[in-house]
Amino acid sequence: MTVPSTIAALREAYRDNRLDPSTVVGELARRAGQTEDYAVWIRRLDSGELGPHMHHLADVRMEDAPLWGVPFAVKDNIDLAGVPTTAGCPGFAYTPERSATVVERLVEAGAIPLGKTNMDQFATGLVGTRSPYGAVRNAVCTDYISGGSSSGSAVAVKLGLALFALGTDTAGSGRIPAAFNGLVGFKPTLGWWSTRGVVPACRTLDCVSVFTRSVADARAVARVAGGFDPEDAFSRRFHRQDFDSGRVRYGYFDPQTLPDMDEGFRRCYERFLATLPGCPEPVGAAPFLAAGEMLYDGPWVAERYAAVGRFLEAHPDAVHPVTRTVIAGGRDPSAVECFRAQYRLASLKREAEETLRDVDVLVMPTAPRICSRLEVERDPFGTNTKLGTFTNFVNLLDLCAIAIPAGSTAKGLPFGITLASPAGFDFALLNAAASLCGEVAD
Amino acid sequence: MTVPSTIAALREAYRDNRLDPSTVVGELARRAGQTEDYAVWIRRLDSGELGPHMHHLADVRMEDAPLWGVPFAVKDNIDLAGVPTTAGCPGFAYTPERSATVVERLVEAGAIPLGKTNMDQFATGLVGTRSPYGAVRNAVCTDYISGGSSSGSAVAVKLGLALFALGTDTAGSGRIPAAFNGLVGFKPTLGWWSTRGVVPACRTLDCVSVFTRSVADARAVARVAGGFDPEDAFSRRFHRQDFDSGRVRYGYFDPQTLPDMDEGFRRCYERFLATLPGCPEPVGAAPFLAAGEMLYDGPWVAERYAAVGRFLEAHPDAVHPVTRTVIAGGRDPSAVECFRAQYRLASLKREAEETLRDVDVLVMPTAPRICSRLEVERDPFGTNTKLGTFTNFVNLLDLCAIAIPAGSTAKGLPFGITLASPAGFDFALLNAAASLCGEVAD
Repeated sequence: MTVPSTIAALREAYRDNRLDPSTVVGELARRAGQTEDYAVWIRRLDSGELGPHMHHLADVRMEDAPLWGVPFAVKDNIDLAGVPTTAGCPGFAYTPERSATVVERLVEAGAIPLGKTNMDQFATGLVGTRSPYGAVRNAVCTDYISGGSSSGSAVAVKLGLALFALGTDTAGSGRIPAAFNGLVGFKPTLGWWSTRGVVPACRTLDCVSVFTRSVADARAVARVAGGFDPEDAFSRRFHRQDFDSGRVRYGYFDPQTLPDMDEGFRRCYERFLATLPGCPEPVGAAPFLAAGEMLYDGPWVAERYAAVGRFLEAHPDAVHPVTRTVIAGGRDPSAVECFRAQYRLASLKREAEETLRDVDVLVMPTAPRICSRLEVERDPFGTNTKLGTFTNFVNLLDLCAIAIPAGSTAKGLPFGITLASPAGFDFALLNAAASLCGEVAD
Repeated sequence: MTVPSTIAALREAYRDNRLDPSTVVGELARRAGQTEDYAVWIRRLDSGELGPHMHHLADVRMEDAPLWGVPFAVKDNIDLAGVPTTAGCPGFAYTPERSATVVERLVEAGAIPLGKTNMDQFATGLVGTRSPYGAVRNAVCTDYISGGSSSGSAVAVKLGLALFALGTDTAGSGRIPAAFNGLVGFKPTLGWWSTRGVVPACRTLDCVSVFTRSVADARAVARVAGGFDPEDAFSRRFHRQDFDSGRVRYGYFDPQTLPDMDEGFRRCYERFLATLPGCPEPVGAAPFLAAGEMLYDGPWVAERYAAVGRFLEAHPDAVHPVTRTVIAGGRDPSAVECFRAQYRLASLKREAEETLRDVDVLVMPTAPRICSRLEVERDPFGTNTKLGTFTNFVNLLDLCAIAIPAGSTAKGLPFGITLASPAGFDFALLNAAASLCGEVAD
């Protein structure tokens, strides 16, 4: 059976009575059964658990519910009421009574949660292999990693197991898996989408993100998911910003000087830049890369320790050994180092702002390379670090970003581009992304 | 000779040729010579140093220079080009080539810097006694402390040695000395006035402040001093906010439940509240007081250590023993504690915002009490802590504030009120303060 792959197409099928939500959910369950070796799910809802969500659809009119009957997947560090949240660590599991605010809003708008997806434990990692529930397989090139930490959510969408999926994104977890699976991955401005009911990674830098097959779908989810949440201390009131002129001013890094770049990825990046409209402007990468390096080398690791350090000390064997090593590093930095790093970051942020003065959208490779599963097994730390070269700085510098698919290398490896803009320009950024993807702007 | 005590009156005297800047500066020097036992100055400019500033006045028209010929004093943790900055610690002194951005702006507008004022060392303290240059004497009740850390700047204005004086304000250093000397002390929104060229106390919470004899004078200085500074990483673009309705909605704390209040101060507070127009609304003090307690009990002391810890370790004997003890406490907290405190603060900030939902201006005592010099000598830590009850939280919660004189107790001790509003409402707050002081609003 064919299930439309975008939200708009699915809604049209519902409206024309060509499909109904039960049939769609049944078909997606069948597909899930056939793709178990991808290790996408930590837990799928059974029919009893799905029941209330299906019944809810009878109570709302499709016109009033922008996500009516749209099945989605939830990364397992985001609460879904009544279902355990593991954050990729069975020993850490708890069963929340309430769903996370973002999930509540999506469900209220008619979306159907199908289950909880596999992830790099405690959202620490960009590889998709750091999970006791199995390494998530890449949906397009199976010898390669899926990317993480929101690995299961990305692969669920790519395999057609859900129309969209929630991830989280601190260092790039909502963008890297999008790039490695040929998807759209949208990471909104910090504080626009509530993080209440989300297991923190770095609480000051965490956001919920979404994987979709089209930019239009990301926009549809954003319209529902975003909004001030008085229960989230880091929630911010969203003031929509638009670019000054009608013509988007693109900026890019010089492909020849970028560190850690795979040669095939570099060529893909150059090819993509050649297609950009207008007169794209080269900008210096230095302040961005310097900020990114601070994420794991600096005191922000202490936020991960603040979140799960107590659990890790009490149950060291319950934690993935690589994850344990990374997070334990957060015990040591001092508050003095913490403030000094914040001063340095403030200064790099000022530099980055200055660099982007005449630029609306920064165009970068999402990742500088992709790794095989074998490479990551051999060097679990080093491979991971390089993957974050163009993602780590984005939340630190308070940018919003969207990863879009951008073809593949001569070897057939998927390549992704990330577009980034300052906080608040989310809808303008989505429009630019839509246009570059050949979709209609809003 | 009579020198007008407000900027507007002095400008009028200049305009009418009743006075000229040299005469005024000469008269103020004479007064300084007569008040040396107040320990106001760390260093006064000699006539050679004053020269260029006086010559500058010939080059600008008074109409174009809003502070033309207005003499002011500078707290000695703010750079004045060519003159040593000590931050109240002779061993720490350095001679800056450039003035702080705020000083540059004032001088450009015609103001005349007279010298550098005494202060609690490294701006750590609210007492005005922690200085090797002597305890600054209170200008209105000499057995009592002057308040700090901007002690010399406040007393300079009160004694008529300068028309206005720059202070700094992290925990209340720009407000407590205003209250204890019957002055106006304005502490702008963080990031509006540049802190480039200021010795940091807590860099994320520092701001430059001003002491004046009238609210109108504070407004006149604010118009010149404020503005984005690309050289200050913590500078923020100022977006002027105004209260929604024409009638200011005042909020206040219940005088009966406030901690650490001197009985006379409590009565003064009640008396002041009775004079407020409209229907002032009682609001809960809990989130404000809880935030305030975090300033010295929490990891923010690490910022003080980040600023001068290296100097303090290398030259322990060069530092005031009380100051040394306070700042050394910043060595110990961990980055984990630092982030946890930032989470707690974010949550208290949310609570405080909710508390102020229907309030434009929060009306508080500036200090809960005043101490005699003897009390502070006997208990230098405990006395200091209590003084900050209503000032410590203001920068942590991102409020702007103005301290205004509000009569005195039955014993003749000066009492002060502080008005506070959320970030950006500075001009609206100044107007409210002017109205409560019987001045005309702008």
